[in-house]
Amino acid sequence: MRLGTILYPDFEMLDVYGPLEMFGSLGDDLRITTVAEQEGPIRAYSGPATLAEWSFENAPDLDLILVPGGIGTLPELDNQAMIAFLQSRCPTTQITMSVCSGSALLARAGLLDGLSATSNKMFFDLAKNQSDAVDWITTARWVDAGQYVTSSGVSAGTDMALAIIERLFGAARADRVARYTEYQWHREAEDDPFHQQLNQAELPN
Amino acid sequence: MRLGTILYPDFEMLDVYGPLEMFGSLGDDLRITTVAEQEGPIRAYSGPATLAEWSFENAPDLDLILVPGGIGTLPELDNQAMIAFLQSRCPTTQITMSVCSGSALLARAGLLDGLSATSNKMFFDLAKNQSDAVDWITTARWVDAGQYVTSSGVSAGTDMALAIIERLFGAARADRVARYTEYQWHREAEDDPFHQQLNQAELPN
Repeated sequence: MRLGTILYPDFEMLDVYGPLEMFGSLGDDLRITTVAEQEGPIRAYSGPATLAEWSFENAPDLDLILVPGGIGTLPELDNQAMIAFLQSRCPTTQITMSVCSGSALLARAGLLDGLSATSNKMFFDLAKNQSDAVDWITTARWVDAGQYVTSSGVSAGTDMALAIIERLFGAARADRVARYTEYQWHREAEDDPFHQQLNQAELPN
Repeated sequence: MRLGTILYPDFEMLDVYGPLEMFGSLGDDLRITTVAEQEGPIRAYSGPATLAEWSFENAPDLDLILVPGGIGTLPELDNQAMIAFLQSRCPTTQITMSVCSGSALLARAGLLDGLSATSNKMFFDLAKNQSDAVDWITTARWVDAGQYVTSSGVSAGTDMALAIIERLFGAARADRVARYTEYQWHREAEDDPFHQQLNQAELPN
């Protein structure tokens, strides 16, 4: 089974690495790869570069796709190579998941139409404005719509990843991953302590 | 102010990126860099490679140092270049912090002697065996010994990072970072829900 992590400039670090920590703990049952428009180093927002192992053009078959968010989402909304890659590859995955504003990219690609979804709380309208054919859920740590699972901001992706591990490999395995990483898993998708900051951006920098 | 993240092959992803997500949210107040024995891509355990921007030889002055853990800690304990770098650079930092088995490297370098410290729960004795001149605390999310702050396994590093942000920039700033990243901060260093798995390794793979 292969997970493809989509990278683009100024991705949010924990959107990628929170889920990858959990999926990476599964060992040989899941191979983690990175995919970007071009192979090579892709710099995170306020952080180091991660190597993209595959380009959009040569990426292998992907059973799972992870779409992170971050400030870099904004230019990607108008990147036809990104949108076309998501449109061609996500429908054939078992599960496509997004963290934070990554759901804006999925919505822009039309992949969430007719489904329930969520996004980062402080910048919720960025996702909402991409499609009015999505049932946008404003109070949710993550939303499981079957093939597409979208999470709220940054840290919520880690909880979503454990829920997906539970679906694919069982609750006992997910619990072992959480213990191994000393992670206090928030198991309830509806338990969203950050819903009150909806569209109330308050930058810490 | 500059934070140097020490990278080595098979580092644990979230040990690095949990803290970096929090520190990276501070914007221009803190510049994040990566340092390894040699510049270039350093592969995480079960994950992609991160680019090391500096080598041990040419690394700039560092105000903060972050030492991650992971399976890759084991060979690094016998890597004289790593131990010598830590011995020469950590004493001049404002704060050196470790996550998970990163404290084994600090202890091997003799930097924790006479201080309190903690480490990953499942593999606690790996750290403990490096020095009996350290007051090893088995029940702690993290231990703040002033210049040296050590955290328990993987996810605990994120909580430690917020505590260090609180010390350096105040509680209001740390709270803003946690809200921005939709992170439910565990504020109490002594609150360690994983202490019962001391040396009880149970791999999820």
